[in-house]
Amino acid sequence: MADVNRQVLLVEKPAGKLGPEHFKMSQGAMPVPQDGEVLLRTLYISLDAANRAWMHGATYRSALDFGGVMAGGGVAEVVESKSPDFKPGDLAFGDTGWQDYAAVKGKHLTKLPRVPQLTNLLSVYGIAGLTAYFGFLDIGQPKEGETVVVSAAAGSVGSIVGQIGKIKGCRVIGIAGGKEKCEWLTSELGFDAAVDYKGESVFKALKAAAPKGIDVYFDNVGGTILEACLAQMNIGGRIACCGAISQYDGVPDAAGPRGVPGLIVVKRLRMQGFIVTDYFKDQARALKDLQAWVAAGKLKVEEDVIDGLENTPQALIGLLAGENRGKRMVKV
Amino acid sequence: MADVNRQVLLVEKPAGKLGPEHFKMSQGAMPVPQDGEVLLRTLYISLDAANRAWMHGATYRSALDFGGVMAGGGVAEVVESKSPDFKPGDLAFGDTGWQDYAAVKGKHLTKLPRVPQLTNLLSVYGIAGLTAYFGFLDIGQPKEGETVVVSAAAGSVGSIVGQIGKIKGCRVIGIAGGKEKCEWLTSELGFDAAVDYKGESVFKALKAAAPKGIDVYFDNVGGTILEACLAQMNIGGRIACCGAISQYDGVPDAAGPRGVPGLIVVKRLRMQGFIVTDYFKDQARALKDLQAWVAAGKLKVEEDVIDGLENTPQALIGLLAGENRGKRMVKV
Repeated sequence: MADVNRQVLLVEKPAGKLGPEHFKMSQGAMPVPQDGEVLLRTLYISLDAANRAWMHGATYRSALDFGGVMAGGGVAEVVESKSPDFKPGDLAFGDTGWQDYAAVKGKHLTKLPRVPQLTNLLSVYGIAGLTAYFGFLDIGQPKEGETVVVSAAAGSVGSIVGQIGKIKGCRVIGIAGGKEKCEWLTSELGFDAAVDYKGESVFKALKAAAPKGIDVYFDNVGGTILEACLAQMNIGGRIACCGAISQYDGVPDAAGPRGVPGLIVVKRLRMQGFIVTDYFKDQARALKDLQAWVAAGKLKVEEDVIDGLENTPQALIGLLAGENRGKRMVKV
Repeated sequence: MADVNRQVLLVEKPAGKLGPEHFKMSQGAMPVPQDGEVLLRTLYISLDAANRAWMHGATYRSALDFGGVMAGGGVAEVVESKSPDFKPGDLAFGDTGWQDYAAVKGKHLTKLPRVPQLTNLLSVYGIAGLTAYFGFLDIGQPKEGETVVVSAAAGSVGSIVGQIGKIKGCRVIGIAGGKEKCEWLTSELGFDAAVDYKGESVFKALKAAAPKGIDVYFDNVGGTILEACLAQMNIGGRIACCGAISQYDGVPDAAGPRGVPGLIVVKRLRMQGFIVTDYFKDQARALKDLQAWVAAGKLKVEEDVIDGLENTPQALIGLLAGENRGKRMVKV
């Protein structure tokens, strides 16, 4: 066991776009677990748009500690345990932060099974798959034959949402940035159509791709794309609010989308937010379905694994720019 | 039976604020009911902020016919029937329009009981009471001890929502315009607090009146008041979207409230719209509760009855300016 704990520090709150200058590599002391805590060795760090949202202040987690280790979830192995719930060698998901080692309270960790492919614990069987599953099915409540739209469709969550939509018999339209991603959605993942928000008017392209209107919109981005979808929702439509990437990397818009609340009333829409951690207690149901779909070849798993803790800042910066396809993570 | 049918025509689409110049009194021929239709004599016309919203174009009803009779719901008596479901002397609720007589399809009418006080069929036992009941209880799902905020609280729907909130054991805060209305809410209707949006900062006054945050917000107004409430919602809060009065009389805001969808995600909020007519099939349950609460003295009924069809335009213009307390209607 190394006695050095490499860490990525978040040195200051970014005023505009996130850049490498906001991070610094450092070395900390090896953490010593207290009663109830577990010493973890980080294996894979999950990269999520939410990491950037946290920098704006308190969200569903407390505000970040600027100058300290950057927060983030990861898959880790238990090195030493002072919690009755864990023993050395166990795998766990938790907020390790961007560092080699972390001491975390056992009650804040989720125990993970030793699957053949550990990266799947962050993608399809982890935060991405569970977010897609619960947000789309429990909040979106799609019915066979309905039209589903998902934004950030080539991302970790969106790519799974769209495929579950096809499994459930829906017409699925993905919104993504760039022709290449759009082609991938339709040719590889079975989406019925894809809209390139960088190359065409989202409003018009959706009109053409969803001539019967939208029944479920899974929103990862907020902003003008949400506005375009709101205007085309059908009566009784559902909007699952998963994230607002368009608002995270810089100064958020001074106002929200037009149509709130007017269209919500007229069309009897339901807009509902959720956080995947609220559903962790219920994950057995999701994992059973997700595993069956993967085994049957109905759900393709796309992962984007970057090597080396020192590359974590650039991996997040690139994710915010839409570089990734599928679940991005860093192998520590 | 008179052979003259007085009518209020909507002569053009208002570009800004609604004024008397947008209406014209006229006389039409007595309508002749066709097969399946009923000839109605209008008794009371319901005035609702939604009347103004319809002028913007298609909503949950088709666009208005400018130059034609102004649309509007009312309580009417059946004069002649070519529908198997109605006979002369029956009372019905339907879209009579602003006129003495109308021929309406029987299937578009709701039969009404002959209660002692016919005005109650538009207030507590009609569109206002049912809107408050279903929107607050079914969409808002208040729990005992929670904090409820309702806007346009001195209006027909808001005044009932707040009183149901007290019946359900909630802390209830009303938002209304002017000191007099606010005092009426707390002293007469039992609200715990009232915020005068014309006289104080809604955001700050809510902070003081709802120190534990807001669990249910019943939104009649949209705009900046919705924005102030969104910012103070608790995790898991519900927003029942009933209307957007602030957006109806003039040019709607170019953008929506800040916090959509960011706060909806972070706080796992549910924002949901509804239209009372969707619940008409289920009204027996509501009427039973509403009647029991009125009988027990727990629910006070406030009505604002204006006399004369010719005064209907001014009655609507005044309602949009916040003149009324309780349910406004015109006795034809």
